[in-house]
Amino acid sequence: MATARPDHRLTKKAYDARVPALREQLVQLQVRLKKAPCKVLLILAGEEAGGRSEVINTLSGWLDPRGFETVAFREPSDEERERPFMWRFWRCLPSNGRLGIFAGSWYTELLREQSGPARKPAQTAHFLERIRHFEKLLSDNGTLIIKVWLHLTKSEQRDRLAELAANDDTAWRVTDEARRQHRLHDQLSRAATRLRKATHRPGAPWTVIGASDPRARNLEVADLLVRKLSAHLDRIEATPTKPARPATPEPLRSAGRARLLALPLDQKLSSAEYEAKREKWLGRLHLATRAAQAAGRSIIFVFEGWDAAGKGGAIRRLTSAIDARDYRVIPVAKPTDEEKSHHYLWRFWRHVPRAGLVTIYDRSWYGRVLVERLEGFCSEPAWRRAFGEINDFESQLVDHGTIVVKFWMHVSREEQLKRFREREKTAYKRHKINAEDWRNRRKWDAYEVAVGDMLALTDRAAPWHLIPANNKRYARLQILKTAAKAIEDALGG
Amino acid sequence: MATARPDHRLTKKAYDARVPALREQLVQLQVRLKKAPCKVLLILAGEEAGGRSEVINTLSGWLDPRGFETVAFREPSDEERERPFMWRFWRCLPSNGRLGIFAGSWYTELLREQSGPARKPAQTAHFLERIRHFEKLLSDNGTLIIKVWLHLTKSEQRDRLAELAANDDTAWRVTDEARRQHRLHDQLSRAATRLRKATHRPGAPWTVIGASDPRARNLEVADLLVRKLSAHLDRIEATPTKPARPATPEPLRSAGRARLLALPLDQKLSSAEYEAKREKWLGRLHLATRAAQAAGRSIIFVFEGWDAAGKGGAIRRLTSAIDARDYRVIPVAKPTDEEKSHHYLWRFWRHVPRAGLVTIYDRSWYGRVLVERLEGFCSEPAWRRAFGEINDFESQLVDHGTIVVKFWMHVSREEQLKRFREREKTAYKRHKINAEDWRNRRKWDAYEVAVGDMLALTDRAAPWHLIPANNKRYARLQILKTAAKAIEDALGG
Repeated sequence: MATARPDHRLTKKAYDARVPALREQLVQLQVRLKKAPCKVLLILAGEEAGGRSEVINTLSGWLDPRGFETVAFREPSDEERERPFMWRFWRCLPSNGRLGIFAGSWYTELLREQSGPARKPAQTAHFLERIRHFEKLLSDNGTLIIKVWLHLTKSEQRDRLAELAANDDTAWRVTDEARRQHRLHDQLSRAATRLRKATHRPGAPWTVIGASDPRARNLEVADLLVRKLSAHLDRIEATPTKPARPATPEPLRSAGRARLLALPLDQKLSSAEYEAKREKWLGRLHLATRAAQAAGRSIIFVFEGWDAAGKGGAIRRLTSAIDARDYRVIPVAKPTDEEKSHHYLWRFWRHVPRAGLVTIYDRSWYGRVLVERLEGFCSEPAWRRAFGEINDFESQLVDHGTIVVKFWMHVSREEQLKRFREREKTAYKRHKINAEDWRNRRKWDAYEVAVGDMLALTDRAAPWHLIPANNKRYARLQILKTAAKAIEDALGG
Repeated sequence: MATARPDHRLTKKAYDARVPALREQLVQLQVRLKKAPCKVLLILAGEEAGGRSEVINTLSGWLDPRGFETVAFREPSDEERERPFMWRFWRCLPSNGRLGIFAGSWYTELLREQSGPARKPAQTAHFLERIRHFEKLLSDNGTLIIKVWLHLTKSEQRDRLAELAANDDTAWRVTDEARRQHRLHDQLSRAATRLRKATHRPGAPWTVIGASDPRARNLEVADLLVRKLSAHLDRIEATPTKPARPATPEPLRSAGRARLLALPLDQKLSSAEYEAKREKWLGRLHLATRAAQAAGRSIIFVFEGWDAAGKGGAIRRLTSAIDARDYRVIPVAKPTDEEKSHHYLWRFWRHVPRAGLVTIYDRSWYGRVLVERLEGFCSEPAWRRAFGEINDFESQLVDHGTIVVKFWMHVSREEQLKRFREREKTAYKRHKINAEDWRNRRKWDAYEVAVGDMLALTDRAAPWHLIPANNKRYARLQILKTAAKAIEDALGG
């Protein structure tokens, strides 16, 4: 990649001659992108005065405005601060078929801190890991990530700042902060090099572009976009979209299934005993959720389990301990088309609760490694990756202070049959059972393997609570108890 | 509606006997609602200690949690404060097929103010008008609105507060504010009566329910929900959904079409003249948008016009004056299924900009009175109502301080034909023209009527700027000028 030197500046004539063809290429690529099951992130960063805004304005003039959006970040809003750090980036991702030009990004804060108060090295390492993980997750999902560093040497920066200051229309941009960054140029540049090195990965590589000649710089960014997008679309369009349809799957970790099978299911609980204990645990759960709220902590409950294991009933009992204004139940049904145009975790990220609030997922992101794995709704590499992606998602929640409590409600095959038959007999329960439930039931063995793998591989950031649920009263009480204790523990009570 | 007196409290036995049938009815109605093209809002309000939370908790235990959500409001977040007041309510509306139980609502603030510092009567009247309009808009669109007032007399309230205070688990709810409201009971009650009277309207009536006996109160709310929802679904299910397909429409106001036809279209502008003036107006527009941002004002541009009138090109020139990080172009294409499950204005409300930012709608809510009117995508009453709904929407934006600038880009029928043919000849423009454009063109006369009505009937809160666009340079310059001046005027410059 040649960096134009000031004495070899591109003439306006040479520039103007190149533009029409480039625009045509860009717009034609946008037409192709619109139909593709993927999105593009163009992330712009660089030394102060490198011309990020000008590049964006130039590209905005060339692209079809209906197919791209510029994403910028200001100070996090309170709605953003009350959620894990990456939430604000998830919510700004463009839909499939679109290009997002990122004027700021997950790098902005790291870069700002290089010139501000020091962050502890361990924190920086942790944050870099998050970024790598985020970009890998998007890239694995088909997202094209183009990261551009607009580079200026110290003397080039001095010249650019002088140019800006000389023009009435741009002088306001030469702020004290800009001057400070210029003084620190070499130090910041070294830090940025380290940052790029740490995040230069397959699927999300950096490209450094010399920014001293604005015209050459604009063309180089546009050329890069054309080259990368065109190759990406060629690849995507040539990929058959037919996922595999596995038969009974092989377990990845047999320990998980063993844990499931070892669970005793013959507990009994009399109605009187249940009612006495229920009051006690409802009370404790109520106090625990209030204490969490007072501490500004949010809570996430995840309910997974066999069909007819009693998730609905258990959720009802659980929520009776919480002020109705403080929780929200998210039933996980077919994704909407907006949701389908994003990574599968997106639709769960969007419901992550604010400080002090509670979200209850009635089924969850674990669909990826259960039904989607078994029905071939996603490819094998995709569901295999999901274990790591889910662990990372949950660890972000936990790191943020969210209390995450996950339940697997377990019934025996016989108990399920009994409940299916009951549902078919009861008028107001009949809507709860359909052909799909019977179909899933026939795949019980396969599900047992998938559930086992799930338990073994995602027990890390937030542990699984296995709930024996053949006896409804016993299961409900266990859930109240487990929930109350998990919250008390998290609050250090 | 009988109000149970304390000496006639419903026994637990009588209550328990009623519950199972009620639950069954509720759940069966939810199954029907899920498939219906409408939503339900159950709004709960009432005197302090009337038991809003308990009613919600009780209903939550009875309803299928997957089909309803509780909506509560806390202090507005900064993202909410920076937008018109009703934005936070729009964003919380449930999707079609769902029930939203509102623990707080657009009434909360009004009620709170009754006990706080006085609002000016004119402001209150204005706000009441907003509420009536909002509820009418929702109700006209098929939303079932049930507003419940949980009523306690002063002595009933004293008893309830004493009960709450006596129980360890609920004593925390008897706050100083609760005691203050009790002291002011009669005054607040009178104010609430006035408020209900002012907002008791067809499609959004209030029901007052005696709240002194918790069991009777719970049953009464549930009964009301069953009765109203059942009647509503009967009505909706019996309504054929086939909208009318009008031929060439009759104008509602001939003045609008006359204004359109009177617009001279033969302006000329040399390339040199254009470039000289363009720089000047780009500069002024740039300064104006920066001044608006500094003042915390947001800006909305609306672009409407004939197909091929040059909206895209004009938007490109306009945005070149604005920092790319500060604006967002919203191209209006087919609504997503989430958008389809809301009032047609919802998808525009969601993109209303925060303070200091700019949203550019490339086509807009005016689709309702143009393409939807002419293609029969909505019923005649629906597009007729839209004029008022749109005026109200825009007046909310303007009242909030948003600067709204609307353009109609006008070309002659001959000029459009020329451009369509050019587009077909140019490789990278071919995607911009399709069979639909030719179909719309054949309906030119009908569109002329609809555009005329739009100009005449929605020129109020935010005026229309008609842009002669046969000459592209002239049109672009006019838009830059008009935009700059409109912002300067709004800032009182």
